[in-house]
Amino acid sequence: MLNYSGESRVNIAASVEFIHNATLLHDDVLDESKARHGVATANKIWGNKSSILVGDLLLTLAFRWLIECGNLSVLSILSKASNLLVKGEIKQMTTRFDPNTIRKNYFNIIGEKTASLFSACSEAASVVSGATSDETERLRNFGFNFGMAFQIIDDVLDYTANQGTLGKQLGKDFFEGKVTLPSIIAYEKGSPSEQKFWEKSFSSARHNFDQALQYINHHNAIHVSMEEAKHYINMAQSNIDTFSDSLYKTALIDFLNASIERQG
Amino acid sequence: MLNYSGESRVNIAASVEFIHNATLLHDDVLDESKARHGVATANKIWGNKSSILVGDLLLTLAFRWLIECGNLSVLSILSKASNLLVKGEIKQMTTRFDPNTIRKNYFNIIGEKTASLFSACSEAASVVSGATSDETERLRNFGFNFGMAFQIIDDVLDYTANQGTLGKQLGKDFFEGKVTLPSIIAYEKGSPSEQKFWEKSFSSARHNFDQALQYINHHNAIHVSMEEAKHYINMAQSNIDTFSDSLYKTALIDFLNASIERQG
Repeated sequence: MLNYSGESRVNIAASVEFIHNATLLHDDVLDESKARHGVATANKIWGNKSSILVGDLLLTLAFRWLIECGNLSVLSILSKASNLLVKGEIKQMTTRFDPNTIRKNYFNIIGEKTASLFSACSEAASVVSGATSDETERLRNFGFNFGMAFQIIDDVLDYTANQGTLGKQLGKDFFEGKVTLPSIIAYEKGSPSEQKFWEKSFSSARHNFDQALQYINHHNAIHVSMEEAKHYINMAQSNIDTFSDSLYKTALIDFLNASIERQG
Repeated sequence: MLNYSGESRVNIAASVEFIHNATLLHDDVLDESKARHGVATANKIWGNKSSILVGDLLLTLAFRWLIECGNLSVLSILSKASNLLVKGEIKQMTTRFDPNTIRKNYFNIIGEKTASLFSACSEAASVVSGATSDETERLRNFGFNFGMAFQIIDDVLDYTANQGTLGKQLGKDFFEGKVTLPSIIAYEKGSPSEQKFWEKSFSSARHNFDQALQYINHHNAIHVSMEEAKHYINMAQSNIDTFSDSLYKTALIDFLNASIERQG
């Protein structure tokens, strides 16, 4: 049962892309990124002012289009997600290193800054397609678990990617002092002196990336991180198990597999 | 007739403040402003990253709250206005000086970047109060005309304000090459050599503010600008003439008078 015109659904999908791209434009300003997907970032080409304003334009245009579609459920889902993802970004910026909460904070932050939008996309698509509430819940969880896996893999690639493929600077998260899963695992498994190295890396500008890579490889932290990502991928797959086979279900499973296999 | 609970109306009013403050946070980053209303700006105290993200947080929170209120008319009015005000900011940043369109562009830009939100506030308040469509149109026009006057006066104060009162750097617009009404009037009335001075001022970093002030005073451009502002104030007042006297009408008229009299 489809209760939404094709045009409305395209507008909703476009609005999600606008929200996503607004956050990318602003993220690249925040992180002073010079390249994304192998090409120069907007802030590199046109400056920070353009990126901030065009981000604002996309965000407000997204809401304008969503509101024109007139579905309050979809509006509620996507406005909550966009608010949550900014909250996640702020938490990432402001959370101080604490050995007792480092793992919990990481999963909380990636849940908000990444998985919330994946989840909202799946849920909103489900709502406009007239799915049952059980189907909607499954698809919402599928999106959340997919988003968690996607972000963990993205964080792994910061330590492993082929720079030409990913198009971003290797070790960027590390140099910015971002606490991501590979470094958490190396920290948890590390000796007291290794833990001191990581604590310094998370809180100061003196960063020795080669040393970090050595500890990460020594503790097999990339493999362990990917196991965690695969755990979320498996959960996502099980969320859609009960749907009957279709072109669309196959496409979703292909997405999951492609995210595990990507090299950048 | 009030068809909206007090709480909803407070949430809508708060959402408008969030949208407004989001734009102020981002504007201060764009303009590298160090002071607003006599105190340090957020970007001066906490840095650009915080201001960008908290601006995004307020913008997404505004839409989240508005959507929870569930009135699609109010949502449509405020989402269009917030989109339009970002468009106005972008036009202000990208419009190149052209003697033939300088005045038209100025009024178009302040209409979008400032008057659109004043107008939307008045219109949204009118809608949630159950006004007739005629009353709503009058209040929408009241807000637009008030907003135009407010921005013209703000632009005048950049050349005249007592720095302690306004709390911002005198001549800031001028030093940024912003084309505002006092400079347009001095340009239009100026000799060919004065016009060359202004053309340089609008397009380069070499800015002689004392010289600009001298031309502006010579051509009485502050007075002529204020006459233009008063023209909008008079239109705003006439927009609400037909409403019967009340505490609220008096408050609106007091706003208009206060905006004309403010020194900073």
